[in-house]
Amino acid sequence: MIRVTIWNENRHEKRNPKVTAIYPEGIHGALKQGLEAYGFDARTAVLDEPEHGLTDEVLAATDVLVWWGHLAHGEVEDAVVEKVQKRVLDGMGLIVLHSGHFSKIFKKLMGTTCDLKWREANDKERLWVINHSHPIMEGVGEYVEIDAEEMYGEPFDIPTPDELLMVSWFSGGEVFRSAVTYRRGFGKIFYFRPGHETYPTYHNAQVVRIIANGVKWAAPALHDPRKFGNARALEAGVE
Amino acid sequence: MIRVTIWNENRHEKRNPKVTAIYPEGIHGALKQGLEAYGFDARTAVLDEPEHGLTDEVLAATDVLVWWGHLAHGEVEDAVVEKVQKRVLDGMGLIVLHSGHFSKIFKKLMGTTCDLKWREANDKERLWVINHSHPIMEGVGEYVEIDAEEMYGEPFDIPTPDELLMVSWFSGGEVFRSAVTYRRGFGKIFYFRPGHETYPTYHNAQVVRIIANGVKWAAPALHDPRKFGNARALEAGVE
Amino acid sequence: MIRVTIWNENRHEKRNPKVTAIYPEGIHGALKQGLEAYGFDARTAVLDEPEHGLTDEVLAATDVLVWWGHLAHGEVEDAVVEKVQKRVLDGMGLIVLHSGHFSKIFKKLMGTTCDLKWREANDKERLWVINHSHPIMEGVGEYVEIDAEEMYGEPFDIPTPDELLMVSWFSGGEVFRSAVTYRRGFGKIFYFRPGHETYPTYHNAQVVRIIANGVKWAAPALHDPRKFGNARALEAGVE
Amino acid sequence: MIRVTIWNENRHEKRNPKVTAIYPEGIHGALKQGLEAYGFDARTAVLDEPEHGLTDEVLAATDVLVWWGHLAHGEVEDAVVEKVQKRVLDGMGLIVLHSGHFSKIFKKLMGTTCDLKWREANDKERLWVINHSHPIMEGVGEYVEIDAEEMYGEPFDIPTPDELLMVSWFSGGEVFRSAVTYRRGFGKIFYFRPGHETYPTYHNAQVVRIIANGVKWAAPALHDPRKFGNARALEAGVE
Repeated sequence: MIRVTIWNENRHEKRNPKVTAIYPEGIHGALKQGLEAYGFDARTAVLDEPEHGLTDEVLAATDVLVWWGHLAHGEVEDAVVEKVQKRVLDGMGLIVLHSGHFSKIFKKLMGTTCDLKWREANDKERLWVINHSHPIMEGVGEYVEIDAEEMYGEPFDIPTPDELLMVSWFSGGEVFRSAVTYRRGFGKIFYFRPGHETYPTYHNAQVVRIIANGVKWAAPALHDPRKFGNARALEAGVE
Repeated sequence: MIRVTIWNENRHEKRNPKVTAIYPEGIHGALKQGLEAYGFDARTAVLDEPEHGLTDEVLAATDVLVWWGHLAHGEVEDAVVEKVQKRVLDGMGLIVLHSGHFSKIFKKLMGTTCDLKWREANDKERLWVINHSHPIMEGVGEYVEIDAEEMYGEPFDIPTPDELLMVSWFSGGEVFRSAVTYRRGFGKIFYFRPGHETYPTYHNAQVVRIIANGVKWAAPALHDPRKFGNARALEAGVE
Repeated sequence: MIRVTIWNENRHEKRNPKVTAIYPEGIHGALKQGLEAYGFDARTAVLDEPEHGLTDEVLAATDVLVWWGHLAHGEVEDAVVEKVQKRVLDGMGLIVLHSGHFSKIFKKLMGTTCDLKWREANDKERLWVINHSHPIMEGVGEYVEIDAEEMYGEPFDIPTPDELLMVSWFSGGEVFRSAVTYRRGFGKIFYFRPGHETYPTYHNAQVVRIIANGVKWAAPALHDPRKFGNARALEAGVE
Repeated sequence: MIRVTIWNENRHEKRNPKVTAIYPEGIHGALKQGLEAYGFDARTAVLDEPEHGLTDEVLAATDVLVWWGHLAHGEVEDAVVEKVQKRVLDGMGLIVLHSGHFSKIFKKLMGTTCDLKWREANDKERLWVINHSHPIMEGVGEYVEIDAEEMYGEPFDIPTPDELLMVSWFSGGEVFRSAVTYRRGFGKIFYFRPGHETYPTYHNAQVVRIIANGVKWAAPALHDPRKFGNARALEAGVE
């Protein structure tokens, strides 16, 4: 059983009644419920817990970490970010959602600014599938339509993705690479765009399905350790 | 005329007579001479200069930065590393040589450990061309052979390269992705493996040619600025 | 001076007065004029010429071949297609425009159906730049807008591109990978979407600039021959 | 249960007693036995059967096709090759082994010559893992060593792989991209180098494990059909 930890900043939910109404249990609560329906062992962690809820024990017991943040990226302690990065490079999966594009952990793993265009104007979003045979796209159909969302537009300052799975169309005139994957060390990373806090996006069954597919894909593979450092010659004849 | 700044740690040259004998002007001096023969406007900068020789003025006047470091990665100030990263993302080319794989700037741009296998045992190295039509491979032929070099072996913990140009064969039994490229922001990055300080590798004409080709490739393209942030809708009908 | 041959089916121009009015010299004539302004040595070839105008002499004297076809893909002789494929694998650049996605030569080089969605309904098209530092994108700005064009939509059944340069937004609700590159053998291939015959797209200065940039990028590099076949061992000790 | 069809030319086994001694049931027989141990529903097909054993019924009942050929690529009927290509593009997995690099089906799907260097001289081969978290590499360790094999060396004239999994080192001095993947249409393709007929390579447990992992990876995903062709506008306002 895949062990998922859903990390949420959990600030909008406390400050903005509109968000509270949509996510009474928080974005993390909604995602927990959605992912448990897929049979995962899901737990949550939030910014205001000690060590942001991401203790060594929690990280060691996490196969895939889901990350949502927005207002308070700067409050996430560097020491925690470094521990998460190390766990990803050692094999933990990481799913970064929406405004998590600007989180310390995503920027640290990408090496770029991760900047983009945005607009809060109830754009219609249509996420078209580009890579139809990828496991994260199973059961998704041709596209996912969301009636109203925040717009994210290109340029999206990320490294060339290992795989491009979906491209979003927005009614206001923009496009965006909205589902992309990376391998870093032993870890697999999936960035997925939708999920502005003022829309009920994480109650959308297709959105949750894609995140669940992402969890399955990002779960660690069985693998032998890599060996770095000084190595003896395998062949004779070397001095 | 492309403006190249060659940055060198310049420590082995001062401590190890064997290295001094090979590079009496330092590795940076040898590279400066080699690259000037290709018509570049080359200057050097070393660790022990103020701001490591990488002042705002120098960086602003640099099209492509070449980086060699080994013993003293930890002495490079974080503030300088951040300035260099910003310049790369804004369009400055970066060529990272040999043990620069463990430099702060390379690790920061890659997001991974950049670890690898190594052995100092006079391995023969043969760098086979994989991508024959790439501009960095112009005039290289089928492979470059170096009689004796330090071995670097897989696993090499880097992100999937945008382009794989060469793979090294070592007589001791290993292989290595020894010439790889990345785009990060507006900047182009070229990692090139050879160049252990105790071998006269940067006097090898083929090695210098590849670095020179890399400089030409990594020089900034003319481009319009990208626009990030809040954007008005281009189409009507969005609220 | 780069030698460009612009190949055109040249059927719509003869049958449809609307097309004749837009392209009195044919699509090939318009492209010839546009590309000559960039300093290329441009010539044309059309379907109804002997060997479709692509004799051994013409192909041998062509650095980059530009291809436009639509109605009559089936009339292109297989022997000519095979010669063109061989020339591409030997280093000739190939730029495939618009409905050329269904040409024999493109399908043969891709190995897939190259099928897609389409609609002739005066959609507005906005081509957003994804890869801002690529030479084909020089001087293009953030996006190119075309007031009315045929729509092409995903899924586009092509291999994963080596590089994704632009993604199109269409007012009717679709997206499309509209500028993509491939390396095949020594040859470089650029597919560029716009250019339905009933719109004056090839009179658009930005569209012509991108094609011209593509010609420069696809022009053959200087390279040594690759050696295939039975090879003697470079190292001793092999039986 | 994944249904595998192992296709073999089956000519060396009939003509060369050395090969018969290694593979008394044919290469297809050895692979069938090896793959059945992984729980697949395996069947075989050979060149000299009617329709080469690849009838519509067989192809329709095949999830993953494994292909070994060498002497008689030219005898495979084009009509069968076209049917196999169509099935791959519709989702059937394809694993191409060793000298299958020159098969009609592989060349048709790749669009290139697929040429390479080779030598029959009992080279030692060491296949190093490059992509450690890929499912095809599960349980493989750092590398697979084969005491004696035919050498295949770069240049290997294939399209840029979607994923590079292993690089081979040969004692005679060459390297080779020996495990690569592609997505074409809905189908997944895995090329795996080892397996010259005069060596007992397909009795090597690690080699068989990688092929078995490849079968699991290449098995068709559940997916909805793609829709090509004329499409109505999803948004209003288009003429």
